[in-house]
Amino acid sequence: MNKRGFASDNNSGVHPAILEAIASVNEGHVISYGNDQYTTSAIQKIRQQFGSEVDVFFVFTGTGANVLGLKAATQSWNSIICADTAHIHCDECGAPEFFTGCKLLTVATPDGKVTVELVKEHMHGFDFEHHSQPGVISITQATEMGTVYTPEEIRSISDYAHSLGLLVHMDGARICNAAASLGLSLRDITGNAGVDILSFGGTKNGMMYGEAIVFFNPLLARNFKYVRKQGMQLASKMRYIAAQFDALLTGDLWLKNASHANKMAEMLANEISDIPGVEITQKVGVNGVFAIIPRELISELQKEYFFYVWNEEKPEVRWMTSWDTTVEDVKGFAKLLRKKIR
Amino acid sequence: MNKRGFASDNNSGVHPAILEAIASVNEGHVISYGNDQYTTSAIQKIRQQFGSEVDVFFVFTGTGANVLGLKAATQSWNSIICADTAHIHCDECGAPEFFTGCKLLTVATPDGKVTVELVKEHMHGFDFEHHSQPGVISITQATEMGTVYTPEEIRSISDYAHSLGLLVHMDGARICNAAASLGLSLRDITGNAGVDILSFGGTKNGMMYGEAIVFFNPLLARNFKYVRKQGMQLASKMRYIAAQFDALLTGDLWLKNASHANKMAEMLANEISDIPGVEITQKVGVNGVFAIIPRELISELQKEYFFYVWNEEKPEVRWMTSWDTTVEDVKGFAKLLRKKIR
Amino acid sequence: MNKRGFASDNNSGVHPAILEAIASVNEGHVISYGNDQYTTSAIQKIRQQFGSEVDVFFVFTGTGANVLGLKAATQSWNSIICADTAHIHCDECGAPEFFTGCKLLTVATPDGKVTVELVKEHMHGFDFEHHSQPGVISITQATEMGTVYTPEEIRSISDYAHSLGLLVHMDGARICNAAASLGLSLRDITGNAGVDILSFGGTKNGMMYGEAIVFFNPLLARNFKYVRKQGMQLASKMRYIAAQFDALLTGDLWLKNASHANKMAEMLANEISDIPGVEITQKVGVNGVFAIIPRELISELQKEYFFYVWNEEKPEVRWMTSWDTTVEDVKGFAKLLRKKIR
Amino acid sequence: MNKRGFASDNNSGVHPAILEAIASVNEGHVISYGNDQYTTSAIQKIRQQFGSEVDVFFVFTGTGANVLGLKAATQSWNSIICADTAHIHCDECGAPEFFTGCKLLTVATPDGKVTVELVKEHMHGFDFEHHSQPGVISITQATEMGTVYTPEEIRSISDYAHSLGLLVHMDGARICNAAASLGLSLRDITGNAGVDILSFGGTKNGMMYGEAIVFFNPLLARNFKYVRKQGMQLASKMRYIAAQFDALLTGDLWLKNASHANKMAEMLANEISDIPGVEITQKVGVNGVFAIIPRELISELQKEYFFYVWNEEKPEVRWMTSWDTTVEDVKGFAKLLRKKIR
Repeated sequence: MNKRGFASDNNSGVHPAILEAIASVNEGHVISYGNDQYTTSAIQKIRQQFGSEVDVFFVFTGTGANVLGLKAATQSWNSIICADTAHIHCDECGAPEFFTGCKLLTVATPDGKVTVELVKEHMHGFDFEHHSQPGVISITQATEMGTVYTPEEIRSISDYAHSLGLLVHMDGARICNAAASLGLSLRDITGNAGVDILSFGGTKNGMMYGEAIVFFNPLLARNFKYVRKQGMQLASKMRYIAAQFDALLTGDLWLKNASHANKMAEMLANEISDIPGVEITQKVGVNGVFAIIPRELISELQKEYFFYVWNEEKPEVRWMTSWDTTVEDVKGFAKLLRKKIR
Repeated sequence: MNKRGFASDNNSGVHPAILEAIASVNEGHVISYGNDQYTTSAIQKIRQQFGSEVDVFFVFTGTGANVLGLKAATQSWNSIICADTAHIHCDECGAPEFFTGCKLLTVATPDGKVTVELVKEHMHGFDFEHHSQPGVISITQATEMGTVYTPEEIRSISDYAHSLGLLVHMDGARICNAAASLGLSLRDITGNAGVDILSFGGTKNGMMYGEAIVFFNPLLARNFKYVRKQGMQLASKMRYIAAQFDALLTGDLWLKNASHANKMAEMLANEISDIPGVEITQKVGVNGVFAIIPRELISELQKEYFFYVWNEEKPEVRWMTSWDTTVEDVKGFAKLLRKKIR
Repeated sequence: MNKRGFASDNNSGVHPAILEAIASVNEGHVISYGNDQYTTSAIQKIRQQFGSEVDVFFVFTGTGANVLGLKAATQSWNSIICADTAHIHCDECGAPEFFTGCKLLTVATPDGKVTVELVKEHMHGFDFEHHSQPGVISITQATEMGTVYTPEEIRSISDYAHSLGLLVHMDGARICNAAASLGLSLRDITGNAGVDILSFGGTKNGMMYGEAIVFFNPLLARNFKYVRKQGMQLASKMRYIAAQFDALLTGDLWLKNASHANKMAEMLANEISDIPGVEITQKVGVNGVFAIIPRELISELQKEYFFYVWNEEKPEVRWMTSWDTTVEDVKGFAKLLRKKIR
Repeated sequence: MNKRGFASDNNSGVHPAILEAIASVNEGHVISYGNDQYTTSAIQKIRQQFGSEVDVFFVFTGTGANVLGLKAATQSWNSIICADTAHIHCDECGAPEFFTGCKLLTVATPDGKVTVELVKEHMHGFDFEHHSQPGVISITQATEMGTVYTPEEIRSISDYAHSLGLLVHMDGARICNAAASLGLSLRDITGNAGVDILSFGGTKNGMMYGEAIVFFNPLLARNFKYVRKQGMQLASKMRYIAAQFDALLTGDLWLKNASHANKMAEMLANEISDIPGVEITQKVGVNGVFAIIPRELISELQKEYFFYVWNEEKPEVRWMTSWDTTVEDVKGFAKLLRKKIR
């Protein structure tokens, strides 16, 4: 029996409905590499969410989705501007640089959110051949710090980016959590807010594997099939990714899973907010709680509910909830924390 | 109901035992990215097959396994020598060149098998800086043409390669079929025959997704975790790849699946060998039958049992069998072919 | 005193008029990186040769010119088709693959010349994502074997390439020798024959360093300045490359140098053609003579006039003449050969 | 007549002794690609400066020297830490990322100098596969801000880097100016201070083109010839780069040129330091003066003595002196500035 903890939403298992969906497409032979009816159907469901004009490509991992999406949007002499906490900068072992050839430039932002003001420091050197040409602003929704952009905030970044000839990429590993938090549709906070390319995350929201790259501008999708294949992200038995997305987008499972995870984080924050010595450090926008806690408690707590230290120095920890986090998990952990802190 | 055909072993579904294995590891939380007990166990089972000294890394796709394995074995100024029918040359959209920076050099070989004699044409220019330095000989077991290397043949290539300072890479997308055909262990035709790096295929032998890179030389595995992550092939929910390999290596499922597929191909070849106008063009070593058939029959046959034309000019077709191909499938198809040809 | 030999036209020194031109632009300060009057003037002279619509970029080396020109014409998932003797395939240590990410595909051609018939074997797999998409046919004028394409031959390749959506690249390291041999203008055998991108060689025709990339299609030159800078081929003190090209294109020096070198090769071939045991193996189109000679003479001859063995097995040697080869050099060498062979 | 200005030391011409040296090696044929006596001799002279154990490779440009040197010192999953003003970060159009695949991480430093304290922020994530592994600290001597590291400062960075398994790269485009300023040998501030790889600049100190990569650790130079060739930086007529370095290292020309340029910058600073409205913003360590001046004067001054604005906002300008800057240039410019400011 594997105990649930608060380490990451990718430590969780697969939602039963998604497992079932996988089993349900297992019969017989279908054409590989996406030329099958399940893939067609899943793409159709994604278009229902994002608009009939979007182009959709399934890949395996979040890093794959981000890097290949960025590749489609850049030339090797571009720069990509992002938060200094961005997954593409901190957690992909340089895959963006390696695969696109681009320079990543970061802005310091305490809450993980990029703003027009912040990116301005990198908006110079246009047309100067010695300078990597600003090509893409990449934002994460929800951010790595558990905060959420409003559509207006995204729109202002998009308008600014487009006014300078840049594109907007969104790492949406937790886009469902953001939409659930805002009470908005997926489209409202992506294409409708000016986003050009989205990594639409599935794995952290109850899937086994699989992400979708969504292009809001069809020009960017031209020839992308070659980028995906050369990028080693083309699944042969595609039906199994498709079935997962199909299930995720059936009966609003995507929203239920994300809302539940968000709610568990909110509950956790509420349960612990009055514990002395515990300081919640970020607004709880989605399914993560960041807090400073007494250093000596960390390893003891981790023994019962595993989680990660985010910042060793403070020390700040991160507690992630998931689609499968239960009220008992949250209460149990809060109780333990309260007890230990005394 | 999806009809089974003879298009490819990756058109087939997932073996029930593997589906079950996936479901069986679904409970609770486990650490992501491979630091879990299921991954440890699966690697252990792979070591039982290949030797306790091998290093094992799971990735998603065959292309990913080949390309990352080659990356671990090369510098960008190396060349990689392979058959002109090799998957790495014909079917990976240039991913090997893009990701390793290396030059691919091919040898013309009608049966898909590389020999020492054949590769000699590329063994020159050593120490000459203008020339991509020969770095790796890559062979495919079983080959893309359905033929199989004996251990002696592999050994002679390995000895030759090593004598010149080159490494030997094996694309083992169908390594299980080859072992089944030869009646040998997986180790006999890989590490024991001098292979340095193996792409150990799972997807074509009844898995949903997932391949393993097996390093027989631990030096090649040093730092490979960074190559895999930067190569976008690190699974977050690794347990589900691990569970599949675990099941594949339990109760000799790998061998049963592969033997069955091979047997079905053999049966197919037998059933049709006497049909006038049908010429089998390759020795049936594993689970594929290559044949020249009357051009006008192709599209009619494809309507009932889908398959691919391999060579438009002759025309030569390829019929692949799979773990789930039935005797009825084979007999039904043979009967249809016989009937149409009259 | 360095003795002149027949090893390569890049073993020769710099033509006095070019050395003078370098010295003549040495005074005072000018803006670096090509924003100077000398660069403007040199580009103007190149446009006089190739047409006012061409775009011109100076780089340092032939490999740099080829690779960056190909980069401008390809996406990483393209293939580049060339002769199996092409410099880009044999002599650039994999720089084209590394820098463009593309696959190089070769055709076997005994005289170094590519034809429509030959490239057809690689013209398949269009729109198939597993297959590197044919993107460029690269030809060398004059070829590495000292042969020359007629404008009609180039035109037939260009028309064929363009009809399939491919571009035509020409490695013109010895384009001047080819034009001299044909008695045609540089434009006749490049842009007017359908070439899209040319590496216009200077170094082998009497310059110290410097090649020019000439784009006949302005779209290909868009953003090329970034490719050149990122490709490490942007000269700071550009005036010195410009001055060399200016001198080369003044008073037909390019033609005089090339014609002289060609004439010396022709004379050499004539002088030795009747020597028993010497077999000239390629038509002498420009400034190189290929011949099979008795193996035991090679090292003795090399002591007095250095040259390279081209093919160890036959053995076939290559004798290159240069702008500075003298009648005495040729006669002296022919005499020596005749004497030794007795 | 091209007027001398204060734009950059690469706007200057070539020192007469270097031009002469080029002419002096022009006779006859020598083996290309560096297998000639002039290259051997020049390398020998560089070894006299840096130690007999160093390995030396000539390339064309400063960007080429930096990028190829870094390539030799890294794997693609490394990070390279440098100042936010570093040439490799600001002025090479992303060539380091493109060619090495590495991530560049910067530290904010007002005077262009990196310190142990500053780089510490990037020294984490070791052995964590999601994180680009810190691989190299790159420093610039003299810095882009005209400041100079003492040997002790370099040593402290080197010791720190080596203690963590990192290497130290030095961009020495103006290493001669730094040595002249410190009154130390080139070796004192490179190999003897723990530097592993040096870009030894020639172009900015009176040469026409050519830089040298100096490896203080022979292991790093192993196979580097392939990196240089694949990096498109191998000169065919190498003798002309060699001759330039030979001349630069004969009779202390390197030191004379650099000392003179430094002295001119010092004089300029002295001449203008008392002008009201002029604020010198950086310590004048070598041949550059940074100053804030009244905005309205800039374009008027540039008409007579060209120079660049470094920071539009302040506005801060940069005045570079060169080996050919004269006392009259300095006095004339200072006089003009004084006059205009009244």
